[in-house]
Parts: sequence; C-alpha cells; structure tokens
Amino acid sequence: MIPFVKGHGTENDFVVLPDPEARLDLTAERVAALCDRRRGLGADGVLRVVRSAALGLEGPEWFMDYRNADGSIAEMCGNGVRVFARYLQLGGWAGGEVGTRAGVRDVTFEGDRVSVEMGPALVFGESVARVGGREFAGIAVDVGNPHLACVTDEDIAALDLTERPWRDEAVFPNGANVEFIAPATTEPVAMRVHERGVGETRSCGTGTVAAALASLRAAGRESGRLAVDTPGGRLEVTVRGGGESTALHGPAVLVASGELTRAWWQSTGQSADSVGHSVAR
Amino acid sequence: MIPFVKGHGTENDFVVLPDPEARLDLTAERVAALCDRRRGLGADGVLRVVRSAALGLEGPEWFMDYRNADGSIAEMCGNGVRVFARYLQLGGWAGGEVGTRAGVRDVTFEGDRVSVEMGPALVFGESVARVGGREFAGIAVDVGNPHLACVTDEDIAALDLTERPWRDEAVFPNGANVEFIAPATTEPVAMRVHERGVGETRSCGTGTVAAALASLRAAGRESGRLAVDTPGGRLEVTVRGGGESTALHGPAVLVASGELTRAWWQSTGQSADSVGHSVAR
Repeated sequence: MIPFVKGHGTENDFVVLPDPEARLDLTAERVAALCDRRRGLGADGVLRVVRSAALGLEGPEWFMDYRNADGSIAEMCGNGVRVFARYLQLGGWAGGEVGTRAGVRDVTFEGDRVSVEMGPALVFGESVARVGGREFAGIAVDVGNPHLACVTDEDIAALDLTERPWRDEAVFPNGANVEFIAPATTEPVAMRVHERGVGETRSCGTGTVAAALASLRAAGRESGRLAVDTPGGRLEVTVRGGGESTALHGPAVLVASGELTRAWWQSTGQSADSVGHSVAR
Repeated sequence: MIPFVKGHGTENDFVVLPDPEARLDLTAERVAALCDRRRGLGADGVLRVVRSAALGLEGPEWFMDYRNADGSIAEMCGNGVRVFARYLQLGGWAGGEVGTRAGVRDVTFEGDRVSVEMGPALVFGESVARVGGREFAGIAVDVGNPHLACVTDEDIAALDLTERPWRDEAVFPNGANVEFIAPATTEPVAMRVHERGVGETRSCGTGTVAAALASLRAAGRESGRLAVDTPGGRLEVTVRGGGESTALHGPAVLVASGELTRAWWQSTGQSADSVGHSVAR
C-alpha cells in the first residue's frame, strides 16, 4: 500500500507522498492519475517527501520533490512548501531547512501559520496588462518565475479573468503570471491572479510575493509585512530591502491521511519516461 | 478520527463514510466541505454507510445515505450504489439488497463490474431538445428523475453543451437531464449528458439507462443489453419489457482509504440544520 496525506494552503491543494528512501516509481503518468480530480485523489500537485541522502544530494535532511498536476517537474511552490513542512511537523520536525529544486528554503512555524523564505523578488521593468479593453499599469517582477503585478483602485472583483490578460511579449518572452491588487492605498489588499498556462487560480505563492512588493512600492515603501487576501484565503508577505529577500506566511491544513489501494496504484501503470528518481537541480 | 474511502464509477466520484451505528454528525455543511475539491477531499457526493437498524428502518442490513456535493439529500445514484457495494465487498459482503431513499436495490458482482437493478424506466412522451440552433428529437423518460433522451446520427462530440439545451417546459415542468446518443444504428453507442442543475458531466447512471432505452427503441427493440460509452467510461444497461425493469452494469473503483484529521473535521463545524440522522423516505 502507498501512504499519502492530502492538504492545502489557501486552497492550493496537494497530495503528499512520504517516500523517505526514494523507493516509489513515481512516473509522470502516476502523478497525473493521482492529481486527476475524478479518477484519482485530486490535487494541484504532488509533494514527494524524500531524504536528500537517498537521492545522493547534499544539503538539508528533507527534499521536496514537487510535481505539477500534469506530471511535469516543478521547481518550487510557496503554498506547497508550507503543506510539506506541516506534514514533516507530524513526525516531530521543528522547522529548519528544506531542499527544493530552486535551492534551500528556510521554514518556521508560527502557531497555525507556516513561514517560508521565498528568496529575492527582483523588479525588472514596468509594463501594462489589458483586460476587457481596459489597461492596468504594473511592474515586472522575477520571483523565480515572471510576474506582472498591477496595483489599481478599480473593483478587481468585477474583472473577467476567464481569458488570459494581454501582456507585452517583448517584456515577457516566456509569458507571465498576472496579478491585480486593490486597493492602492489601504491595507489589507486583495489579489486576483491569472497563472501562466493554468488560468485564474484560488491562490499563488509567488504571485502573492509579487503583489505585496508592488503594493508596498505604490505606497512608497521598500520594506514591510503586508496581508494579501487571495480568493483562497489570507496570506502575509514580508519584503526586505525592496525585494532583496522575501518571506511568505500562511496556513497549511492537513485534511486527511491514508493509503492508496494496491489495485488502483497498479492500474496507473508505469511509463517509459519515468522521472521517479530524477531530481536534477 | 473519521475513516473514509474514496472511489469512483465511470469518473462519478464519491467519499464513502462508514458509519454503521449512525453516530456521525454529518451536517450539510460538512458534506459540502468534504466534497469541496480544494478545501476537502473532493467528490460529486457522499455515501454514508449505515445499518438500517441504527436508523430505525426495516429492510436490508445496509442503507445508502446519499448526499449531493452541496449537502442536499438525494434519493439514488446508479454510479454511487456500485461504489457503495464495492466498499461493502471489502468487509466480505457478497451482494444482495441495499436500502436507498428510492427503495431497495439489488446488487450483484460480476468480476470487476457491479450490477445494480435500477427499477422501471417509463416513457411518458416525445419531445425535442435544441442546441446551437439545431433540433434533436427524443423521448421523455422517467427513471426516478426526468430525462430527455435524443438518439441521433450527428457527431455528438461536436455539440457545445456548456449551455443548458433548450427543452419544453410543458413536458418537463421540473426540468430534465438531456442525453445525446449516437450513432442511431450500430452498437456500442456513445452518450453525452447535461445534468439538471449541474451541467455536462462525465457520466450519469439514470441517464445511461434512459439512453439505452431510447437507443433500443430506435432500433425497434423492447429489450436487450447495450453498451453505452460515457466520457467517463463504458457502462452497460439491461432493459426488460420495454423498460418495465432495468439494470446498470459497470466498474466501481476504490482509489484510497484513510482517516480525516480531527482538526479538519472539527473546523468544518456543525450547522443548525443538521441532517445527520434524517433519512425520511
């Protein structure tokens, strides 16, 4: 039987697969089957919990092998690492460093919230997004992935984000997540996000960091801790030195734990392009 | 801790809650939280497994207390009862009668398929559905709930079912599930269904029964066993005596079993309009 835990952070949800000795044959096919919301358990992604040593890696005891719902490999996920840490806490882990494909991340527990260091958020320009014929000014931010964060005093709840907002290909040759943040002048702010290749989502960790940075800048501030309300719940962001380093603070909820049935696991089969033990950094 | 099993039948998915002695305080709020695909486990509905005796009911040993994803009470579900039966099989149950709000249902196991008697399917008229400016002739069928089953030789894969098909309010004062079945002349047939109050779904047990009846009638037959391919997988339907009695045959897959965390269950709270022990028939 294959044990699992299901959890979410601001409604960004994950299947946690404990696999300390890296024995699971976790093919892309199996990840996709696990994340299928009707045929499987359903999730935005899989967080495999592996000992770095079992993968031949230096660094922290635990490595977060994060996979997207389609089975592809992903680098980091601000909501995912909190759920990952909450799972480790069950076994007595008190916080500390976690290995990810994007490098080592520091995690601390603050009561019912989990804080994770998100690294630098670098502003690399100004640009605009267009939605429903209207234009929104924003800043281009690199939080490991590209963002266009637009602070506005308009009613962002009324925006139609079913279609991807227009953004300038010259500024974002690889696309971008687009955030709309309001209001421009008071706290807490609300955010909606359209994720590259996904569509509108309930929450986005790196997007929240970009949004907080944009909001602080709009208020003429370089640093601070700001509450950001996503459709999936409240997150907080710490920005230091204009984005030199950032941290994300928020909930991480474990919903259930159990075991996948052997018959189901076997039915998901194995694919030739197994990525089970591939953790190239 | 609250034990659960997650399973599906042709991608109609359910959380099974074993509660033999009827001790769970299963409020509408908790059902909705369980079925929420991001904050909970995620499912189309909850199947509570209760002893009829624990509810003060006569009849079979086991009663299927079925709830819709929004927490409302539902009578029967052809895909749900197969998953319910598969769960009972884990404990050594060999098949037999199951109590439901729509009455007693007979269940038998046929290898990896589960058969359930679905009762009568009564034709009560002819009508038409309209989709994208085109009209489809069909029959009105009562399978415990109302259906408009339209057999056609057109390419049903090309139909846009994002909007509800038009149907005649005079024939269907309480609305209807609308099925499109093709081809009209050969087997197996394929079906797409727009469910009343839901939208297009991957599968629908009663809809498959209505579709098979319509397909057999189109071929001038009163009885038979027919394969129906839904987007979620293949079902088979037995029709006897022009719909006097019917049976549904299909897969029932148990994906995982486990326990809900105490903290999560408690966070879902209790509502004043608890329907936990209400099983009015």
